[in-house]
Amino acid sequence: MPDPVLKPARSVCPIASTLDLVGDKWSLLIVRDLLIGKSRYGEFLKSPEGITTNILADRLRRMEQTGLVERDLYQQHPPRYAYRLTRRGRKLLPILQDMCRWANEFVDGTWQPPESFMNAKFED
Amino acid sequence: MPDPVLKPARSVCPIASTLDLVGDKWSLLIVRDLLIGKSRYGEFLKSPEGITTNILADRLRRMEQTGLVERDLYQQHPPRYAYRLTRRGRKLLPILQDMCRWANEFVDGTWQPPESFMNAKFED
Repeated sequence: MPDPVLKPARSVCPIASTLDLVGDKWSLLIVRDLLIGKSRYGEFLKSPEGITTNILADRLRRMEQTGLVERDLYQQHPPRYAYRLTRRGRKLLPILQDMCRWANEFVDGTWQPPESFMNAKFED
Repeated sequence: MPDPVLKPARSVCPIASTLDLVGDKWSLLIVRDLLIGKSRYGEFLKSPEGITTNILADRLRRMEQTGLVERDLYQQHPPRYAYRLTRRGRKLLPILQDMCRWANEFVDGTWQPPESFMNAKFED
C-alpha cells in the first residue's frame, strides 16, 4: 500500500505540521520504543511511563493512518500484531536525539542514552 | 531569579522528560514565534494556527514556571508583558529545525523556512 499522503492541517508551517502528527506526550515514546526494538502491544505497555491501553491503541491507530508505522499479523487466534516504523517514522529519530540532548542538559537526573542511539542515522 | 530546577516526571528517559514539558500541539509553536522575534500576547494570537487566549495564557504560564520563557512588564496600565526565551528555551531550536526537515520531506506543501532559521545556532 502506498504511504498515505500527509497534508498540512493547522498551517503550512512545518513545525505545526509535525506537531499535528506527533505533538502529544505519547506518540514519540512509541517511536522511541520501536526504534529500540520493541514491536508488540505488551512491550509498549511495559515501558516505565505507564501508557494506558486506550491511549496506546489510539496512538498506534493514528500512527498507522498517517503512515508512521505498519503492522503485521503474527498470530491468528487471537489476532496479534507486530508493529514497525516506516521510513517516515524512522526519520523522526533526529527529533528524539535532540530531545535527549536537551533533557540531558536541562532536566536533572535524566538517563544518558548510549552512543549507539545518539549517533544512529538512517540512510536516505 | 535562578532557573527553576527541572526533574524527570514520568520516567528518567530524556525523551519523556522533554515531552513532559513541551509535548503538546502549542508550546513549541510559541517557542517558534519567540525565536522569530515575536514577544507579545497579541502577536502570538495572530499566528496562523489560531491559538486561543486560554491555551496561550496556560502555555506561557507553564513555560515561565519551567524556566523556558521570561517576561518583562512593558506597560503598567493595563499591565502588559513582553516575553522572551531563556537559554534553555532557545536551546529547543534544534528540535524545531529537525521538525522542519521532517515535515518538508514528508508533509506535502509545507513552507520551507529560510536558511537563516535552519542554520541558526546558539552559543553554549
